[in-house]
Amino acid sequence: MVPGRVAVMGGGSWATALSKLMLQNMPGIIWYMRRDDRIEEFRQLGHNPAYLTDVEFPVEKICFLSDINRAAMEADTLLMAMPSPYFKSHLAKLTVDISDKRVVIATKGIIPDENMLISDYMVEHYHVRPEHIMVVSGPCHAEEVALDRLSYLTVASPERAAARAFAEVLNGKAMHTLLSDDVSGIEYAGVLKNVYAIGSGIIHGLKTGDNFQAIFLSNAIREMERFITQAVGGTRCICDSVYLGDLLVTGYSRFSRNHNFGSMLGRGCPVRRAMMEMEMVTEGYYGTKCLYEINSQRVHASMPLLDAIYSILYDGVPVVRAMRHLSSELV
Amino acid sequence: MVPGRVAVMGGGSWATALSKLMLQNMPGIIWYMRRDDRIEEFRQLGHNPAYLTDVEFPVEKICFLSDINRAAMEADTLLMAMPSPYFKSHLAKLTVDISDKRVVIATKGIIPDENMLISDYMVEHYHVRPEHIMVVSGPCHAEEVALDRLSYLTVASPERAAARAFAEVLNGKAMHTLLSDDVSGIEYAGVLKNVYAIGSGIIHGLKTGDNFQAIFLSNAIREMERFITQAVGGTRCICDSVYLGDLLVTGYSRFSRNHNFGSMLGRGCPVRRAMMEMEMVTEGYYGTKCLYEINSQRVHASMPLLDAIYSILYDGVPVVRAMRHLSSELV
Repeated sequence: MVPGRVAVMGGGSWATALSKLMLQNMPGIIWYMRRDDRIEEFRQLGHNPAYLTDVEFPVEKICFLSDINRAAMEADTLLMAMPSPYFKSHLAKLTVDISDKRVVIATKGIIPDENMLISDYMVEHYHVRPEHIMVVSGPCHAEEVALDRLSYLTVASPERAAARAFAEVLNGKAMHTLLSDDVSGIEYAGVLKNVYAIGSGIIHGLKTGDNFQAIFLSNAIREMERFITQAVGGTRCICDSVYLGDLLVTGYSRFSRNHNFGSMLGRGCPVRRAMMEMEMVTEGYYGTKCLYEINSQRVHASMPLLDAIYSILYDGVPVVRAMRHLSSELV
Repeated sequence: MVPGRVAVMGGGSWATALSKLMLQNMPGIIWYMRRDDRIEEFRQLGHNPAYLTDVEFPVEKICFLSDINRAAMEADTLLMAMPSPYFKSHLAKLTVDISDKRVVIATKGIIPDENMLISDYMVEHYHVRPEHIMVVSGPCHAEEVALDRLSYLTVASPERAAARAFAEVLNGKAMHTLLSDDVSGIEYAGVLKNVYAIGSGIIHGLKTGDNFQAIFLSNAIREMERFITQAVGGTRCICDSVYLGDLLVTGYSRFSRNHNFGSMLGRGCPVRRAMMEMEMVTEGYYGTKCLYEINSQRVHASMPLLDAIYSILYDGVPVVRAMRHLSSELV
């Protein structure tokens, strides 16, 4: 009975990529999108009108709903795929009891203002049982899933059987899945890598070179390990695909919004203008603030990379000065 | 008195980059090059006629020698920077006793035919004392050193003071140095990363995508750790710059000869033709064979990536088939 009926929550590119994968293995899905006009357009066009528009969908297998409560009621498993900055406001409309549902978190993240992991937020505010929470994470660009390029996803859950069952509905010719039980560690990694992708983009924009880029990312993975170890405890192989692979794909790829955002900053574009020029939400911008505050308040790990990027984004420190200062701290 | 007078052995791009760094800190160096005509041209032009030609040298500070024995006699420290495939034949002319010299290994590698680390070869065949051996390694493209781009080098030696003294002659505004004692581990890493750079290039050439590239490299670093642990023993942080950073700079960079060689193979070019089209030696080609044999004969680590690249280079397995097979083994 796991995962049962799945409702995809959100209409962005990641939601679209995951829906494509699931519809290869499931008879149908529920798909919650906020806007009725988008749903109508999706039905008529046979594809998402705004994201991954090349992917054609069997719309007859999709139960589109713009009522979040109906979507939640009809599903056994809720797949959360809204961008983290809007997560809380989307879910504010949710009034039905979802405490007996399974929740798969595909959103990278932390809830802004609350500075809470999404899994913790779902447990605390919606009384979802911790053992019913799953996380699905990369390395995986939605754009490459659309192109059927070979990709790997990790499904993490405290219950191995549940993770395996959900992994099976994602598996396909071009998609391999791996299993893990490190729910919180993977959630933190998913936010941290967006921060480092901004840094990597800054270095790209500054034309500091490949050597420094590689040094930055090898420091980043060690910083990530320090943070997760102090924040979550336990041990993990930080070179596993879901941590290091995800950092690399975001840090080196031109598909990454965070990387492109950083690259604009590196080329001298002010933070505000770079924010406006990005068409999609740059999650790493918000993630940087959340992680900086979580670290200052609770975790207290040594985070020179995070601190440098925070100083650029929120304290107005010029990129050249921040990176020069950082370069003396890297090992 | 460490490092005393340094003789640079070899006239390639890496020898040239290291010489540039040393001449910023030392009154002079000895520079052994095989060909007298090259030396003459270097003196006249004020730069290396074949490599990093934009870097101007104070030639009055360089004692050029084409006699390897005289170079060895006059120096306290020999900096080995010949490409590994020619290492043995170059050194065959060396007849003077160098057992009391310090030897810095900048060549990546393993001696073909012998399947021995260069450090072991120097100890066994030239009776250099193990504690007098140093290794200097990246992440560092010679081309970026030439451009004064911020880079980091690691100097490894069983004697920390010797490593520190040599690191000081490399240090500069654009060059940070780190210290280590993992001589053999770093030597193996330097060869392994060239093998993985070929694989990374193949994936680039095949256009398999960023997701698979990231998965490949995160498997590569774990394979590297397994191999070094089984071959050398001890523990190391495999995410340190000298291991992971060096893998990334070679695996992702367009400057890398190994990456470009792999990229040609991925685009369908036969191995022989790709070899001919590369103007410089592709060390990873030879490294793959050495490591494959060392692993089969002595180390017995699980090496699916190395095995896949070996099968392409030496067994004529088509790149698509080798990579498809490999993709099912990655985690």
